[in-house]
Amino acid sequence: MNEVLRQLAARKSVRVYTDEPVTAEEKRAILQAAFDAPSAGCQQFYTILDITDPALKARLADLCDHQPFIASAPLVLVFLADCRRWNECYRAAGLTPREPGPGDLLLAVADACIAAQNAVTAAESLGIGSCYIGDVIEQCEDMRAALALPAAVVPAAMLVFGHPTDQQKARPKPARLPAEYIVCENTYAERTPAGHRAAFAARAREAGRPDFDYDAWMKAFSARKYESDFSREMSRSAAVYLRDFARWDG
Amino acid sequence: MNEVLRQLAARKSVRVYTDEPVTAEEKRAILQAAFDAPSAGCQQFYTILDITDPALKARLADLCDHQPFIASAPLVLVFLADCRRWNECYRAAGLTPREPGPGDLLLAVADACIAAQNAVTAAESLGIGSCYIGDVIEQCEDMRAALALPAAVVPAAMLVFGHPTDQQKARPKPARLPAEYIVCENTYAERTPAGHRAAFAARAREAGRPDFDYDAWMKAFSARKYESDFSREMSRSAAVYLRDFARWDG
Repeated sequence: MNEVLRQLAARKSVRVYTDEPVTAEEKRAILQAAFDAPSAGCQQFYTILDITDPALKARLADLCDHQPFIASAPLVLVFLADCRRWNECYRAAGLTPREPGPGDLLLAVADACIAAQNAVTAAESLGIGSCYIGDVIEQCEDMRAALALPAAVVPAAMLVFGHPTDQQKARPKPARLPAEYIVCENTYAERTPAGHRAAFAARAREAGRPDFDYDAWMKAFSARKYESDFSREMSRSAAVYLRDFARWDG
Repeated sequence: MNEVLRQLAARKSVRVYTDEPVTAEEKRAILQAAFDAPSAGCQQFYTILDITDPALKARLADLCDHQPFIASAPLVLVFLADCRRWNECYRAAGLTPREPGPGDLLLAVADACIAAQNAVTAAESLGIGSCYIGDVIEQCEDMRAALALPAAVVPAAMLVFGHPTDQQKARPKPARLPAEYIVCENTYAERTPAGHRAAFAARAREAGRPDFDYDAWMKAFSARKYESDFSREMSRSAAVYLRDFARWDG
């Protein structure tokens, strides 16, 4: 295993940071890696917000399902799927572009997340931990106000960075589901109830929990994640963002 | 600059491959890096299709805006945003989950793209080139038939891999837009017409084209990309995929 593969395998989310700042040089390297990521037609369909204002960090911590560690993170970056900027470029050249559509949004979300993951990998190589905040999709109205988002600009990913505490370094990386459960050859294969059970049992064994109870775990996990208030809020909020792309004129 | 940063900076899309295959061991390492990527709640909201059937590769080459190099790529992976599999897990535990909503889709697209980018980085470390195929979002009806996609499973990214030819190795990496044009401090800042012009002029200078004509370039680029048939098809197709998430019951 080469050094890159070793670091990708070792990287895990870090939510508790030491007081050590992320230097300007480190931030530049992290951002440069994001820019260096592949991008559809080299269009860089994202705008990155570098959140330096402590009051705004605190506001984001609140809007993102009340996670205080965001407020104290040394570096906070919001990756916006920006379906506005190129249309403004076209307008500056005297063109009248079509409205952005749902395909433009999906492409821009992909571009933004691909860039974000390069930032994560770059940070890891510098000994800087990171954590994605999926909740950035929530609270559309308040998020738009907090970040001054115009129409057709949608938060795709938020990342917080900082140097991991010793306790965070020692924390084991969560086990993944088996490869044969995630990968299908050629076409999509429905997995069976027995297949689901076997995959989660294998993951639990790898995590040192051989007494795993599938039914009980799924019930608790569903209540905590999928049927939770934050999850329903995420879809409500996303539906509002999507309305900008329904005006698409084909 | 450390080795990881160096490789992220050097990586560029590769569309012409030598006859050298991607070995089973290399494929395993590439997939493992995808699994090792961060994932919301460690839920791995993706299914990866490993396209080994030459006829299916040829079909995808046709469906993805007729790009023949896809058909001859040694390794083709489709990263699906899978908003079905977890609901099936919940059903296997006797639960009756809500319909997936637009927030679930955006989270799954992010998960899939974050995993895909780890696959790209892993491949680069093994000397294997890669290229994203954004066109995988197009031709919803035919794509669903070709890949046997059920409802709420949406192609987020497609990657083709292979060893780069010498000509591809020598090709310069396309220049990026200036950092100060892409990054805003704290809140979204509208860029001005003069700002757009300056950013693209800077990119052209970096690419060795100091005689760059903004208006002419934007007109040609818009016609070739944003106002093209494939781009309109991408939004038509994406709108069909999104219908699966409009049945969301809040």
